[in-house]
Amino acid sequence: MTASAFDHPILSGLLGDQEVAGQFSAAAELQAMLAFEVALAKAEAEVGLIPEAAAEAIAGLAEHFVADFDALNQATARDGVVIPDLVRQWRAAVGEEASHLHFGATSQDAIDSCLMLRLTEVLRILLRRLANIIGALDALEARFGAQPLMGKTRMQAAIEITVADRIAAWRLPLIDLREAIAAFAATGLPVQFGGAAGTLEKLGTLSVPVRARLAAELGLADRSQWHSQRGLITELGGLLARITGSLGKTGQDLALMADAGAAILGGGGASSAMPHKRNPVKAEVLVTLARFNAVQISGLYQSMVHEQERSGAAWTLEWMLLPQMAIAAGASTRIAGDLFGSVERLGEA
Amino acid sequence: MTASAFDHPILSGLLGDQEVAGQFSAAAELQAMLAFEVALAKAEAEVGLIPEAAAEAIAGLAEHFVADFDALNQATARDGVVIPDLVRQWRAAVGEEASHLHFGATSQDAIDSCLMLRLTEVLRILLRRLANIIGALDALEARFGAQPLMGKTRMQAAIEITVADRIAAWRLPLIDLREAIAAFAATGLPVQFGGAAGTLEKLGTLSVPVRARLAAELGLADRSQWHSQRGLITELGGLLARITGSLGKTGQDLALMADAGAAILGGGGASSAMPHKRNPVKAEVLVTLARFNAVQISGLYQSMVHEQERSGAAWTLEWMLLPQMAIAAGASTRIAGDLFGSVERLGEA
Amino acid sequence: MTASAFDHPILSGLLGDQEVAGQFSAAAELQAMLAFEVALAKAEAEVGLIPEAAAEAIAGLAEHFVADFDALNQATARDGVVIPDLVRQWRAAVGEEASHLHFGATSQDAIDSCLMLRLTEVLRILLRRLANIIGALDALEARFGAQPLMGKTRMQAAIEITVADRIAAWRLPLIDLREAIAAFAATGLPVQFGGAAGTLEKLGTLSVPVRARLAAELGLADRSQWHSQRGLITELGGLLARITGSLGKTGQDLALMADAGAAILGGGGASSAMPHKRNPVKAEVLVTLARFNAVQISGLYQSMVHEQERSGAAWTLEWMLLPQMAIAAGASTRIAGDLFGSVERLGEA
Amino acid sequence: MTASAFDHPILSGLLGDQEVAGQFSAAAELQAMLAFEVALAKAEAEVGLIPEAAAEAIAGLAEHFVADFDALNQATARDGVVIPDLVRQWRAAVGEEASHLHFGATSQDAIDSCLMLRLTEVLRILLRRLANIIGALDALEARFGAQPLMGKTRMQAAIEITVADRIAAWRLPLIDLREAIAAFAATGLPVQFGGAAGTLEKLGTLSVPVRARLAAELGLADRSQWHSQRGLITELGGLLARITGSLGKTGQDLALMADAGAAILGGGGASSAMPHKRNPVKAEVLVTLARFNAVQISGLYQSMVHEQERSGAAWTLEWMLLPQMAIAAGASTRIAGDLFGSVERLGEA
Repeated sequence: MTASAFDHPILSGLLGDQEVAGQFSAAAELQAMLAFEVALAKAEAEVGLIPEAAAEAIAGLAEHFVADFDALNQATARDGVVIPDLVRQWRAAVGEEASHLHFGATSQDAIDSCLMLRLTEVLRILLRRLANIIGALDALEARFGAQPLMGKTRMQAAIEITVADRIAAWRLPLIDLREAIAAFAATGLPVQFGGAAGTLEKLGTLSVPVRARLAAELGLADRSQWHSQRGLITELGGLLARITGSLGKTGQDLALMADAGAAILGGGGASSAMPHKRNPVKAEVLVTLARFNAVQISGLYQSMVHEQERSGAAWTLEWMLLPQMAIAAGASTRIAGDLFGSVERLGEA
Repeated sequence: MTASAFDHPILSGLLGDQEVAGQFSAAAELQAMLAFEVALAKAEAEVGLIPEAAAEAIAGLAEHFVADFDALNQATARDGVVIPDLVRQWRAAVGEEASHLHFGATSQDAIDSCLMLRLTEVLRILLRRLANIIGALDALEARFGAQPLMGKTRMQAAIEITVADRIAAWRLPLIDLREAIAAFAATGLPVQFGGAAGTLEKLGTLSVPVRARLAAELGLADRSQWHSQRGLITELGGLLARITGSLGKTGQDLALMADAGAAILGGGGASSAMPHKRNPVKAEVLVTLARFNAVQISGLYQSMVHEQERSGAAWTLEWMLLPQMAIAAGASTRIAGDLFGSVERLGEA
Repeated sequence: MTASAFDHPILSGLLGDQEVAGQFSAAAELQAMLAFEVALAKAEAEVGLIPEAAAEAIAGLAEHFVADFDALNQATARDGVVIPDLVRQWRAAVGEEASHLHFGATSQDAIDSCLMLRLTEVLRILLRRLANIIGALDALEARFGAQPLMGKTRMQAAIEITVADRIAAWRLPLIDLREAIAAFAATGLPVQFGGAAGTLEKLGTLSVPVRARLAAELGLADRSQWHSQRGLITELGGLLARITGSLGKTGQDLALMADAGAAILGGGGASSAMPHKRNPVKAEVLVTLARFNAVQISGLYQSMVHEQERSGAAWTLEWMLLPQMAIAAGASTRIAGDLFGSVERLGEA
Repeated sequence: MTASAFDHPILSGLLGDQEVAGQFSAAAELQAMLAFEVALAKAEAEVGLIPEAAAEAIAGLAEHFVADFDALNQATARDGVVIPDLVRQWRAAVGEEASHLHFGATSQDAIDSCLMLRLTEVLRILLRRLANIIGALDALEARFGAQPLMGKTRMQAAIEITVADRIAAWRLPLIDLREAIAAFAATGLPVQFGGAAGTLEKLGTLSVPVRARLAAELGLADRSQWHSQRGLITELGGLLARITGSLGKTGQDLALMADAGAAILGGGGASSAMPHKRNPVKAEVLVTLARFNAVQISGLYQSMVHEQERSGAAWTLEWMLLPQMAIAAGASTRIAGDLFGSVERLGEA
């Protein structure tokens, strides 16, 4: 089954991104959730909440645990979240110290923290790619920057500018985005740890030190629980949509330039009816991905209306939107890199 | 890779729908595109545009053609559409009559017609399920209809109504939707056939009769080309979003009723932190799917700004949205059937 | 204050539509709500629920009632709907038969029915304008249809077509829309009448005949209450967004054609920096309005998650979106009429 | 005409915000555009680009200029922007030094800079209101924080928490938002100054110093031109939507608490059918405004696909969305302040 173009056997070459999508595979997800439990057990053992032996047994899961995916799938259909059955499977694999696994935590702690771990990787990937794209634009500027280009406003010839002028307008937003991602990376994405209803009631006075150790162990920032406070998700989604939006603008420009003879793009696509054509496929797809994320972001903001201590409905909606937004940003940076690298000429002939 | 919750190894049990998703598998897609080419060859042979032998050879592809998916994936990354390479593969498999395959057609003809074939099946599935859900509501009315229920307006107790009154408000929109789908089915979804730029220029005066035969062969309605006229896509998307929206309202009501003690839902979900809880997971997911489709529909309307004879950017955006909207409608009808079937009590205790 | 471009002292000439907006003035709204109360009283008097004298006194309000807008504004801030205070004002104006006004009805009955009355007028306006636009396209076809035009797919030259081919792709969706609106008009938009919680509990066995008379009196279709069933609103919104989307496609095409020298549009806009320019302002605005409605429609679908017997939150959201969508459709048809009428040439020079 | 609920004679009490809306009045807009021209003339005179006398004459406009709104409205319908005709009117009022007004600038410079001036005020208003709301929450915590409250997850009773726990989840996002706004205010919103196509070609080597002086004069940050780089608009829109989203969550919670008897809200709304009811109108409206902005934000991201040096279509779309988003954020903070101030009890009775 291939609901999404991102992992469609045929379309994923066009629209997908293996590296970013890899962070959203079920395997990556399970691994990150286990990392959460291992780190939690370690933190709880350090303060004496659970035995050292339990923490060691739980850490050992990373070596030998094999998930029963069928059971997870069925249980998730019933429970709405994977954690209850996954905890059951993990505990069965741990053996006698089993009851100490997931102590004081709830589903959302594992799932949201695991998302932050994977988004940390996604931001790292995007940061590297943005740097490459900026480099590619620098190179294009060096080659073609002095060429004349008809500046166009409101889709009409305005006055003559240079290719460097237009490249500057493509590059500045990417530099801003690089800084914005770096700022997120510097602070670190936050751990989520709140227990059943956000109060970590089972940890008593140890709740704050455990959370701090858990965060440090995972390489996340320490922060009080944000179960029902989803503004961060919209900020991250906004970053992803700004990446696709900024590159979508360059795609729109290049498609128009190709049509007007002010750019020659390499690697254009074939047509089944017109073998002579060279379609600006990558430029178009940048526009597609920009509009796609512009659509999805709306749903992340809808999910901010997150009732009470935890909303099943609003939270689940995030799961359907954010991974695709991240992959769209990945695909957009991948494609932009290819596209800018394939440019054969910019500027009027 | 699992970009989408709909075919995620863990989440698909909760959010997916195998039957509808089956229509969007790559295999179903290839089969429908081949059906288009076979029907086109047949229609063109009947009017003498291509040899009978060619039509027969093309029809034979259904028996023995095996697609090279890797090649399709790579070519689509370059061409933006699968058809150029798929035509190449088909022609290689046909042998000497190869040049007659896809005669006068373009990528969009095959892809859009193939989408209509699969959406015809989707509508059939949804129609059957809506009938079942209406039946389940009838049964609930028979069991609990006379029970008192506090009517609520603006989230406050208003006056007493009966369970039957609320069920009527759930059922009427489904009856309307059943009629709307039946009306679409009665007219038939339209074939798309326009050639390179919509003018079927290679068919001359035979264009209209070939299109009519092609439509009849495929069980689609005959209609002049709609390459760049995407209103139909928004109408179909609207139908899907009205299904999820109407069922989302019932899910919201049931979750509130369960909380207030005015409903007992069977099969509730477990919590990893609170084993005593019975979460109204299915009711919540109906809300999630409603909001999901409410987000996606925006993109279909954005795609109506479909420049010139065919927009790569706008058309590709549809591919990213419409299949997921259909699966969401499928999942919503599947879950609503389960949920209404599991109700143990409606009305105040 | 001018929150909206549609009635902004400066921008409304560009983006507004006086005729459609007139249906959403406070005066038109009050008039339509009073029409509802007058028709209700007449219907209730006919079946003997209220005295004839009361119906006559209520009908007399149309002559002399002057609303206290300050009081309405303040009361609506408190009540969330205008009707409680408006009923109070009307009753004060009626005098001794006052208690019979609004008998058995609730706020939503008056407001939703009043919306249907005004949308009936809006559809009438749009139908007339679509007919004019189709006529303008016929005229353009007669003048320029035979001219050659480079067909473009994926923003690249494809094969030569004629201006008539492209005009056909602009006109067909408008013909479809004209039929869709005519079908709505033929059925009639539905009355809303349900009382406090949808059960018309104060009317007993007379509820159905009163509703039928009320509908007939108002020129609306009779239909059982749809307080919490908002699919119709999405259908009407969909129609509006299809109008703007279909015309947005023509605007995008014309802007591209003007840039490429394949069209000369009259009445282009001036630039403050470049007096020589002629901007395709109207063509661009058609794109703007298409994207605007494509954004708004999402919120109408969100509002389908309309909890219980009536949702204050979801219903109020409709009020913020639907009037603007209607005015956008009005502006789009107004501008398209002007734009097509101003075309000085279509086709390559 | 009242397209928008925000300035509707009846609805504005419920949904509007006079203080924020005041920044989007035509008068405030004209005043800010004139401030731009005065500051530009001063900066240009300082570097010797235009005569001192011209700058003084232009500064004098603030005293005596009266706009001809009818002419502006009609010209904007033709030009797509107000500036060409406004420059004409201003120049007529200046007299002999007229040609020095708006020297080197283009419409977008005046309009975007003027927007930044007014959004600076809007952020100031929102910052002050957020502080007040945080104070109101502190006060509620002091009064009711120790009261027990049933924590609810997935719309089901979970475990007991305290009112203070829930208030903390309401307050933290507001503290984050206060910091985010303060950070924007500290940097300053950027001036826009690029001339016809972004190159300030008429200013030569003086372009950078003039821009710096212009920015300083206006109290804006200096930044190279961002004509076609619209990421900032999405960031500001995101801030507005995070405000409405965070407060929408509190509204949803309070409406549910009022229904469950866990809160008593003062000032509830009346019903025309059920005089006994006290509707949680303000709580519901917070949800409405959250969903409204969640819808609109999508369009700001669509506008990032801003082709070439300036897109008429994409830019105009921003004008239709951003002012309403700002007023929605204003209304949300106004209403939240009232609502939290009116709470009579929080926590189980």
